[in-house]
Amino acid sequence: MNTSTTIESGPWAGWRTWPEDKFESGTGPFYMKRDEAGRVVCRFIAEPRHMNGGGFMHGGCFMTFADFACFAIAEEQTEGPSVTVNLSGDFLSAAKVGDTMEATGEITRAGGRLIYVRGLITANEKPALSFTSVITRLSKRP
Amino acid sequence: MNTSTTIESGPWAGWRTWPEDKFESGTGPFYMKRDEAGRVVCRFIAEPRHMNGGGFMHGGCFMTFADFACFAIAEEQTEGPSVTVNLSGDFLSAAKVGDTMEATGEITRAGGRLIYVRGLITANEKPALSFTSVITRLSKRP
Amino acid sequence: MNTSTTIESGPWAGWRTWPEDKFESGTGPFYMKRDEAGRVVCRFIAEPRHMNGGGFMHGGCFMTFADFACFAIAEEQTEGPSVTVNLSGDFLSAAKVGDTMEATGEITRAGGRLIYVRGLITANEKPALSFTSVITRLSKRP
Amino acid sequence: MNTSTTIESGPWAGWRTWPEDKFESGTGPFYMKRDEAGRVVCRFIAEPRHMNGGGFMHGGCFMTFADFACFAIAEEQTEGPSVTVNLSGDFLSAAKVGDTMEATGEITRAGGRLIYVRGLITANEKPALSFTSVITRLSKRP
Repeated sequence: MNTSTTIESGPWAGWRTWPEDKFESGTGPFYMKRDEAGRVVCRFIAEPRHMNGGGFMHGGCFMTFADFACFAIAEEQTEGPSVTVNLSGDFLSAAKVGDTMEATGEITRAGGRLIYVRGLITANEKPALSFTSVITRLSKRP
Repeated sequence: MNTSTTIESGPWAGWRTWPEDKFESGTGPFYMKRDEAGRVVCRFIAEPRHMNGGGFMHGGCFMTFADFACFAIAEEQTEGPSVTVNLSGDFLSAAKVGDTMEATGEITRAGGRLIYVRGLITANEKPALSFTSVITRLSKRP
Repeated sequence: MNTSTTIESGPWAGWRTWPEDKFESGTGPFYMKRDEAGRVVCRFIAEPRHMNGGGFMHGGCFMTFADFACFAIAEEQTEGPSVTVNLSGDFLSAAKVGDTMEATGEITRAGGRLIYVRGLITANEKPALSFTSVITRLSKRP
Repeated sequence: MNTSTTIESGPWAGWRTWPEDKFESGTGPFYMKRDEAGRVVCRFIAEPRHMNGGGFMHGGCFMTFADFACFAIAEEQTEGPSVTVNLSGDFLSAAKVGDTMEATGEITRAGGRLIYVRGLITANEKPALSFTSVITRLSKRP
């Protein structure tokens, strides 16, 4: 089971992450919390290790953060193990070292088994990736 | 500019990679070569650091390898700097530690500016991710 | 060139359509206008001819309306001939005969050549299709 | 229930269609059969009514034919009512009046509930649309 942890001190105090997820911990870590309006916000700071050979953020880094964000956004609906069925991203503009990467989004539909999410990643508040995802619960919701 | 290097010794001798791509080097490295039939083949071995909290390969790792594969497949058509416009993946089945991950695919269309790719990632020869990508050259082909 | 016409009388008075588009005229017609807030709204009423063999709206009808909506939403940015590069739809729920079908959305990015759109189709105000599109101008914007 | 019919005479003798699907019958009809190799082939001839305002095949017509093809390709696995979860198309090149439109493809994965398809539509044998689809059975396969 994937359990989140709240960071207790430092610049990310109050944000949560999934520490048991080795790929996310190694790529990120990425952080999530609910803002005052109850909206899920995900964030990390772009570093040199996130860049491609051209010096801009790698598409795979964008998609990893998007996948993280989809589960963060869908979290209150997944209620147990769930996996990605489809993940799609439209690359709107580039991101570079030092940019504050932020993902927000919404559940467009939570059915008995499938959960649909869409969202937007910004780099220093400029739209950078538009993403959609379909997630499936591994067991149907009671 | 992103220049590939051929590995000279060890288990990956004869395979190429893009060493200047920090994100791919850190996530992978991923390897590519042309097989006897001239078809691009991409490969890496799944390790614990590629897994999610549930113990299976992270969706972001799949998409990163897919993005790498799209550029490997499109390489002879890109002729200069090019970036991903859209990347989409359908998750067919899971991959686990130790699996040989392999990506193959084809250019479905190479136009004056846009290049379209589709491919398949297998885990120990079992289909695991079906992907499509649209790539754009940053300057039109002469 | 595709020029829109404003309907002058009847239930759709004040709405616009593209009458020279034979496929849309035959499938729809579909209607668009800007609401008081300046937001593009697209609409049509579901009829028996839009249904599949199971009695619900056909996926192709949804995607045709989505494609129409993408060009309506992107209209002020296309500035000349433009075509769809990618169109993707997530099917959230069904629509049936008599439903008021409405599409709204937004440009997530308008670059020198590529325009990115995302939107939502509702059936009687219930989310039914989440869509994204990449459109390319056939000539670069001056 | 959606039952197919085999055309008995005329140019499409031997091909099958789903006559109860009103939207497909009105947009097409589209035809399907298995070729000598056992591969599903779908076909129709492009007419003026399938064109957009620019004189080329409408994106919605492409996607409707793709959706038809996905169900034709997946038919032996659907075993009962099933619906589209995601449909995505990459537009490779244009099609015009008189073109022979053909769709072929493959099931990339058929799970307990979800079926994944990918395929290609050609216009006079030139690649025109690359598509992927996720279909869900409404009841789990026994």
